[in-house]
Amino acid sequence: MEYRYAGRLSNIRASEIRELLKLTERPEVISFAGGLPASELFPIQEIKEVNDYVLDCCGEQALQYTTTEGFQPLRRWIAERMNSRLGTSFDEDNIMITHGSQQALDLTGKVFLEEGDVVLCESPTYLAAISAFRAYGCRFAEVETDEDGMVISRLEKALEENPGAKLIYIVPDFQNPTGRTWSLARRRQLAELSAKYNVVVIEDNPYGELRYEGDFLPSVKSFDKEGNVLCTGTFSKIFCPGYRIGWIAGEKEVIRKYVLVKQGVDLQCNTVAQMVISSFLEKYDIDEHIDKIREVYHRRRDAAVDSIERFFPDNIKYTNPEGGLFLWVELDGKVNTTKLLEKCLEQDVAFVPGDSFYPNSGKSNTMRINFSNTQEEKIVEGIRRIGNAIRALYGID
Amino acid sequence: MEYRYAGRLSNIRASEIRELLKLTERPEVISFAGGLPASELFPIQEIKEVNDYVLDCCGEQALQYTTTEGFQPLRRWIAERMNSRLGTSFDEDNIMITHGSQQALDLTGKVFLEEGDVVLCESPTYLAAISAFRAYGCRFAEVETDEDGMVISRLEKALEENPGAKLIYIVPDFQNPTGRTWSLARRRQLAELSAKYNVVVIEDNPYGELRYEGDFLPSVKSFDKEGNVLCTGTFSKIFCPGYRIGWIAGEKEVIRKYVLVKQGVDLQCNTVAQMVISSFLEKYDIDEHIDKIREVYHRRRDAAVDSIERFFPDNIKYTNPEGGLFLWVELDGKVNTTKLLEKCLEQDVAFVPGDSFYPNSGKSNTMRINFSNTQEEKIVEGIRRIGNAIRALYGID
Repeated sequence: MEYRYAGRLSNIRASEIRELLKLTERPEVISFAGGLPASELFPIQEIKEVNDYVLDCCGEQALQYTTTEGFQPLRRWIAERMNSRLGTSFDEDNIMITHGSQQALDLTGKVFLEEGDVVLCESPTYLAAISAFRAYGCRFAEVETDEDGMVISRLEKALEENPGAKLIYIVPDFQNPTGRTWSLARRRQLAELSAKYNVVVIEDNPYGELRYEGDFLPSVKSFDKEGNVLCTGTFSKIFCPGYRIGWIAGEKEVIRKYVLVKQGVDLQCNTVAQMVISSFLEKYDIDEHIDKIREVYHRRRDAAVDSIERFFPDNIKYTNPEGGLFLWVELDGKVNTTKLLEKCLEQDVAFVPGDSFYPNSGKSNTMRINFSNTQEEKIVEGIRRIGNAIRALYGID
Repeated sequence: MEYRYAGRLSNIRASEIRELLKLTERPEVISFAGGLPASELFPIQEIKEVNDYVLDCCGEQALQYTTTEGFQPLRRWIAERMNSRLGTSFDEDNIMITHGSQQALDLTGKVFLEEGDVVLCESPTYLAAISAFRAYGCRFAEVETDEDGMVISRLEKALEENPGAKLIYIVPDFQNPTGRTWSLARRRQLAELSAKYNVVVIEDNPYGELRYEGDFLPSVKSFDKEGNVLCTGTFSKIFCPGYRIGWIAGEKEVIRKYVLVKQGVDLQCNTVAQMVISSFLEKYDIDEHIDKIREVYHRRRDAAVDSIERFFPDNIKYTNPEGGLFLWVELDGKVNTTKLLEKCLEQDVAFVPGDSFYPNSGKSNTMRINFSNTQEEKIVEGIRRIGNAIRALYGID
């Protein structure tokens, strides 16, 4: 038959990262392309134990339907964690559990966005947020972003130029794709501007716990007096992504809307997964586990930065992130990283060309490097191969 | 702040069933209101064993990200099961794993429906399908339905009156809420009409495996020559709902669209859950497990039907379903089951008033009775109380 799809499908494109992941599944490829946490750090033995415990103590409950909001003890833990780490004042009713923070982004689109609405975002910004929001037919206004976050004068200009703008989307800690972290002053200024212009801020924070140096900073939400800021979070990077457990946090009035929408979307998240994570948090020291992850990723970041310094041409800029999973490289203006990737794949090494992180038009001489899921010696070798490919293609030194 | 929600939120209402479930959480309430499977039948010990097995053999894979399509061996099992039971000709690429069949319905809305589109459905129909589709701004044209399914002449009339209709939504086996099953002839006729009018059919089949008497029938899909029919399924009723694992099945071209949409929505379903279910299916005999469920629910259906016969007034109609979880009662025209429910809650017994299963305007003298999650003696007592409440309120005998 001739399928008559909804018009919105023309806004929905294949995620380049996920298509790339398929290309890089060959075990011989050194891939900096994904955003995978290091699976050798998953607490498998502990998860087996808490899973047995949950099924022994309350298997019937764990395998049955539960509420759309999510498992209450887990929501309470999240609220308390956010309050102590991010300066928020939440209780469990400020939190709804989602299928990873990706679902929090999709539901945000469903709750707020209509065809033609404007979303302000960092430039560049997180690829899968672009996909999630774009499905609702929004336009993006990219705001110039430097080492300290969005340039505030540019943000204000964008707010003036787009008076009905619905959302400001940001990743203030170790941003995907650049690894950059917003300064304290910019966080405060953003909260003020969002109140002045009556616009909702989505503060997406999947990596905030993974800081390798410097001080933890309070969230944008902690400066929010009017209830403009919603926060997303996830267990994918500090525990494991396979369970698909994340959350959205915000004023109770708004969270109730998310609950209504999620009811029609998929009823609820996996009951067992929520109870297993909650039991893990009760029986084990998550900070000890996070420390292990930080130590390993810290070394991998160092290996990546040192190798870039050593093997890439001189005329480049790159970020040295204080945490997270990614760093960002801007090469000589004549380099096209999509073409470079083709060459690199022949050499069994992969990264994501930066172009796709710009919702409108990008800089084709940029690339994102993920360092969390590759061991140091392979990082060195992989970066060396990319450096060689740049030289071979463009003759730059 | 003054939140500026998307217009679609005016289409999204609280699910009465889920609000009711909250009212009936008091343990003293005999509830026929939910749609819960009997949790005492969950194979808890076996799940513990396969979970340990999965984490021992391949914990890193089970806790890591996977593909949006879902775990390949599970998709292959589903395809083969459908082929042998439902007369389809699928392979794994015809299947995408979803968060319960509820997500399959929501994604269907996202793939096909635009503001103002028409969905044809049985009258009455599944409440949460109404919620899922309505969020996309569609209208519903209800088609008269009798003991054998939609009345085909009425369906054809509705197709003529709504020339751009996008979907026909049906639950042909042990329908929710009525428990009715479509005849073989109607299935074939529906497939023919969907081809003639170029309209997609969603064949929602969460209960088909739970037949207590009579013969299994081939699916509507088995009569589909043009690729018009998409099928949904779920492990919620034959295994457990807590894992949130269901699927959508259809022509590969369409399933690829669902995959694209799901990428932006939540990336993928729970990896562990998919591998645990897949291992269970490999190591244990699911048919033996389903036989246990069928035996228990069969007895409960009999208890419900016998008690209705015994305790309800004479002037009623009710269904005696050959399978599934629900039966449907139509009372004397002067009864209002929403008012009746208030009275019943005082007597610690609950059901769902039938009104909410009609997307447009319903029959307020109907009710849905779920019998899967209540033991026989409680079924008898609960139905007795409802019967008394009808007499007390309306003086009918």
